[in-house]
Amino acid sequence: MTPQPAQTVDAFHRGRFWLVQPKGSGHRAGADALILASAVPGGFSGRLADFGAGAGAAALAVAARCTKAEVCLVEQSLEMLRFAEMTLAHPHNAGVKGRAMLLAADVSLAGEARERAGLARNSYDFVIMNPPFNAAGDRPSPDPVKREAHVMPDGMFDSWIKSAAAVLHPRGGLAIIARPVSLQPILAALAGRFGDAGIVPVHAREHEAAIRIVVRARRAARGYLTLNPPLVLHEALGDGFSPRAGAILDGEASLFGD
Amino acid sequence: MTPQPAQTVDAFHRGRFWLVQPKGSGHRAGADALILASAVPGGFSGRLADFGAGAGAAALAVAARCTKAEVCLVEQSLEMLRFAEMTLAHPHNAGVKGRAMLLAADVSLAGEARERAGLARNSYDFVIMNPPFNAAGDRPSPDPVKREAHVMPDGMFDSWIKSAAAVLHPRGGLAIIARPVSLQPILAALAGRFGDAGIVPVHAREHEAAIRIVVRARRAARGYLTLNPPLVLHEALGDGFSPRAGAILDGEASLFGD
Repeated sequence: MTPQPAQTVDAFHRGRFWLVQPKGSGHRAGADALILASAVPGGFSGRLADFGAGAGAAALAVAARCTKAEVCLVEQSLEMLRFAEMTLAHPHNAGVKGRAMLLAADVSLAGEARERAGLARNSYDFVIMNPPFNAAGDRPSPDPVKREAHVMPDGMFDSWIKSAAAVLHPRGGLAIIARPVSLQPILAALAGRFGDAGIVPVHAREHEAAIRIVVRARRAARGYLTLNPPLVLHEALGDGFSPRAGAILDGEASLFGD
Repeated sequence: MTPQPAQTVDAFHRGRFWLVQPKGSGHRAGADALILASAVPGGFSGRLADFGAGAGAAALAVAARCTKAEVCLVEQSLEMLRFAEMTLAHPHNAGVKGRAMLLAADVSLAGEARERAGLARNSYDFVIMNPPFNAAGDRPSPDPVKREAHVMPDGMFDSWIKSAAAVLHPRGGLAIIARPVSLQPILAALAGRFGDAGIVPVHAREHEAAIRIVVRARRAARGYLTLNPPLVLHEALGDGFSPRAGAILDGEASLFGD
């Protein structure tokens, strides 16, 4: 019998889906994945790819809320895919299992290599991504070269967004959650590939700087960038979620109001 | 006697400075100039250049609020400089006149030509700019080439920001007010020249998309970009200004809280 890695099983969206995750690792899903999933319109009914899906929190949150969506969890870590597999096999996830698949692939691949990895051109209606970042990068390095590398390791946003453009149908949607420091590389990578971009800043509290940005755009569209009202996670007093944040985290509201 | 162009004289900052402006022209100063001026810290006491100063609203708003600042109105339109001259000569502006000068120059010049025009390297502590935009550009053109030209005519942000970097001391400040659609060209032009960037989105009302962004940064600094809480101009009901917007427009508060 294979030894089982240490794991936790947690309910999300008021129990509409469950997640099997490694215990005590840095890859555990949280609010970021749920907020990202809420950027997909509630009526979405096509094929969605979750780039760097981890244990599948964001993809499953979409599948739980958009009951006609089919989701593909794209992840290069076989360890994380094993947790994703256990997640899909969990009896409480029967409602989403039939609409979810797993793909072991590196989304930063390009050209033929990307197609051979199973990421076919022109084959998805939506891509969501929560690219990894090094928490140490929050503190600027005194070395500008190192600093740049921290902010955008090896042109990560450019390669991930380029892959998203390749696998999407024309007019397909893209949603990204990232730190505000990544705004410039994200907008630069969208330029010429995506239009109709909208940004929602995410603040922990009303009077503090944003901790995350969600950027949504449409492949080969031509509309201008809009900067939407922010999402404020917590009330001014105490640690409770604001009503809007609570609804978004529970899978009962869309971040862009659609 | 030279015929006087049609003009209006209006009080700003509760009468702390006045502006002589062309009557019925599209170049009249308004909230944009006052919000831009409020991005300068209240304790600022150095030399400031206002790129594309028009009749001088933003520069004079800085001079009125920062009583030790010296301001230079840089404007290439001789017609607008004539209004700026009348503005400085107005008896109600005696308190700022001695700290304001005019420079007829095109801020999009580069290299030797820029220096010959009077924009010397390494000579200012702060630059503010409210670059012109064509209101027609708010509606995307179906032609992507024309559309790009509307958004960033001839690389305007790049040339203006490059000139700002040239005339500023190291660690000197830059503040820009623009439309959200210009976020990408502005961040691209700042990259490698400015750091410590902060953005304040400006919304007419809390639940509507932003109508302006204010971007502030520091020459040759290394800190990361931050996305600050938005400025909301109007209360939910009625046309009155929010208390914070009122204080900013009256020259009694700083946009970045400093």
